[in-house]
Amino acid sequence: VTKKLLVLPGDGIGPEVMTEVARVVAWMGRARGIAFDISEDLVGGASLAVHGVPIRDEVIVAARAADAVLFGSVGDPKWASVGFDLRPEVAILKLRQELGLFANLRPAKVFDALAEASTLKPEVVAGLDIMIVRESVGGIYFGTPRGIETLPDGTKRGINTEIYTTSEIERVARVAFDLARQRGKRVCSVEKCNVMESGLLWKEVVTALHAREYADVELTHMLADNCAMQLVRNPRQFDVIVTGNLFGDLLSDLASMLTGSLGMLPSATLGAVDGEGRRPALYEPIHGSAPDIAGKGIANPLAQILSFAMLLRYSFAMEAEAALIEQAVANVLASGLRTADIMSPGMAQVGTSVMGEAVVRELDKL
Amino acid sequence: VTKKLLVLPGDGIGPEVMTEVARVVAWMGRARGIAFDISEDLVGGASLAVHGVPIRDEVIVAARAADAVLFGSVGDPKWASVGFDLRPEVAILKLRQELGLFANLRPAKVFDALAEASTLKPEVVAGLDIMIVRESVGGIYFGTPRGIETLPDGTKRGINTEIYTTSEIERVARVAFDLARQRGKRVCSVEKCNVMESGLLWKEVVTALHAREYADVELTHMLADNCAMQLVRNPRQFDVIVTGNLFGDLLSDLASMLTGSLGMLPSATLGAVDGEGRRPALYEPIHGSAPDIAGKGIANPLAQILSFAMLLRYSFAMEAEAALIEQAVANVLASGLRTADIMSPGMAQVGTSVMGEAVVRELDKL
Ligand SMILES: CC(C)[C@H](C(=O)O)[C@@H](O)C(=O)O
Ligand SMILES: CC(C)[C@H](C(=O)O)[C@@H](O)C(=O)O
Repeated sequence: VTKKLLVLPGDGIGPEVMTEVARVVAWMGRARGIAFDISEDLVGGASLAVHGVPIRDEVIVAARAADAVLFGSVGDPKWASVGFDLRPEVAILKLRQELGLFANLRPAKVFDALAEASTLKPEVVAGLDIMIVRESVGGIYFGTPRGIETLPDGTKRGINTEIYTTSEIERVARVAFDLARQRGKRVCSVEKCNVMESGLLWKEVVTALHAREYADVELTHMLADNCAMQLVRNPRQFDVIVTGNLFGDLLSDLASMLTGSLGMLPSATLGAVDGEGRRPALYEPIHGSAPDIAGKGIANPLAQILSFAMLLRYSFAMEAEAALIEQAVANVLASGLRTADIMSPGMAQVGTSVMGEAVVRELDKL
Repeated sequence: VTKKLLVLPGDGIGPEVMTEVARVVAWMGRARGIAFDISEDLVGGASLAVHGVPIRDEVIVAARAADAVLFGSVGDPKWASVGFDLRPEVAILKLRQELGLFANLRPAKVFDALAEASTLKPEVVAGLDIMIVRESVGGIYFGTPRGIETLPDGTKRGINTEIYTTSEIERVARVAFDLARQRGKRVCSVEKCNVMESGLLWKEVVTALHAREYADVELTHMLADNCAMQLVRNPRQFDVIVTGNLFGDLLSDLASMLTGSLGMLPSATLGAVDGEGRRPALYEPIHGSAPDIAGKGIANPLAQILSFAMLLRYSFAMEAEAALIEQAVANVLASGLRTADIMSPGMAQVGTSVMGEAVVRELDKL
């Protein structure tokens, strides 16, 4: 069975960090005889530059046909003038929606070697290991009516709609409860039920599902504003957090920044298992396209490389190979190499490709 | 001219911290000959217990007639079963909306004596002084359609609507720019324009207003998820942040927790100046009703006392008296007294009323 992979580097630092993954893929072929059927295409700003659209229909088709998608990043604001429907971000939003990738798994984990890189005190974040499960094809990101309308007096109204249904909430909560069973067995469900009815329904549905099927997992509820505070006050109180699309966007970025190593964090976005046992999946770094440092060769490629490790584990059940990559990354950090974003006194600062090469050298030693 | 004050302690720790303000009010009468015409009423859980509703119409009427409202806190979840329309939070939401209190000013300021209470490293937060201006009568908090509907197949849909109009955005942005002129002359406008049209309009309107009237202030734009990260990574990059209701709710709670002294932070919520030069205004602590510690006599009353100082300054132009209170609070901290929430080694832990008495004792010395 060939392993069909679609690689979409995107814009900003996407292409340069993806180049480093290619080294790891090559190593897998060379050292472990594992071949992938890889195709690559343009999305985001890179697609806009060539095709005038952030993603072509044929890329969606190719993504559906692939066993897994490895995504870089999109969002270079230099495309701001193309208009709302053509902005680079449409690429990732369409992929999530068209492939039904409803569960965005965003780990916020402190790497021992990097604990000092956090702006939080070491005693607050040491050993931090949170998994945020963010709903990713619903909520205010996709609800209608939406748009900007001009009123008779010339003023404008911007409108967006948040909608969540019972089944949308249930399926993502299920992912969170299942994950919790393999971890600390605790789920915190986050909404704003004191202000929003969609949050009230969210809480009700999660509570009912828990009572019906997951009584062995501890369930708590938290308001989104309180969660933002608690993540700063005492982040280690959390195991798995499950929340909607918009709150998940903010809270997962906040949580990942607590670790001090945003450039290290991979993510997975999963759909439903189909009749043939296939599950659509996309893997991407937590970090964005960072256009301010794009092309300078200084971006940290490790989140992209670790996203590939996650892909091996979740889409191909290649646990051994995933673990090898993770060990190689840990060894590179232990050897003192650091990209600018995780640099600290006494360490050796290196660029994107030296970091990528170092991972392969460590793989060779394993 | 009598100074008409409506005092609404609310539920949770609201009443016990408000009791300490009464000492300061009494001191103002005794030592400075300043009399207030004070009425007090029930809101939130306290009103539910007596009247069966979170706020009575006559309280709204009294609030409109007052020169300023001093608010405690509402939100005790023990009232969760009363239903969405009767929840304690309706009290503050209705006051904001009915009085047109559209600009919620939320400072996140590190108190020198308390810098060590932050979970962030001292070098990251020392001297932090951010002002968040949060829109507070619009957005997804109040937009319609909203509610939970049951579909023919028995599943449910929760719906909320985010709406912002040109004029709603302009008036709150104006408050932010005006404040920036008295501070660091920098405004960061925060939305999610890469996903939401309401955010796109927000950005357009703020940009246009800035070009027309506030070119002397520096304006930047930031996505809400990035802002959540940047507040953790390097909070001192911000001067004034202006944002919508929902993002402001999360980001201001996050920002205040960075200071390590949530129990110290007051806020003001301001309306428009009317034809007679009156401006509706409500003052409340940033912290919530903290039902878990209510009634124990351990809550920190300083945010409530400092909210009263803010009230004197903004609603009555009593700058000298406001400064006296702030100095007294600083002196109490310098003397080593701490409530549990801001306790640190070597300091003296005290309860709510000892802290309130200490403020009055320091006022006596000034
Ligand atoms: C690029 C953008 C549309 C996206 C989002 O808001 O979902 C990003 O911030 C993310 O979190 O993956
Ligand atoms: C009590 C609640 C409705 C309120 C809000 O969400 O606005 C509170 O969190 C606040 O920030 O003042």
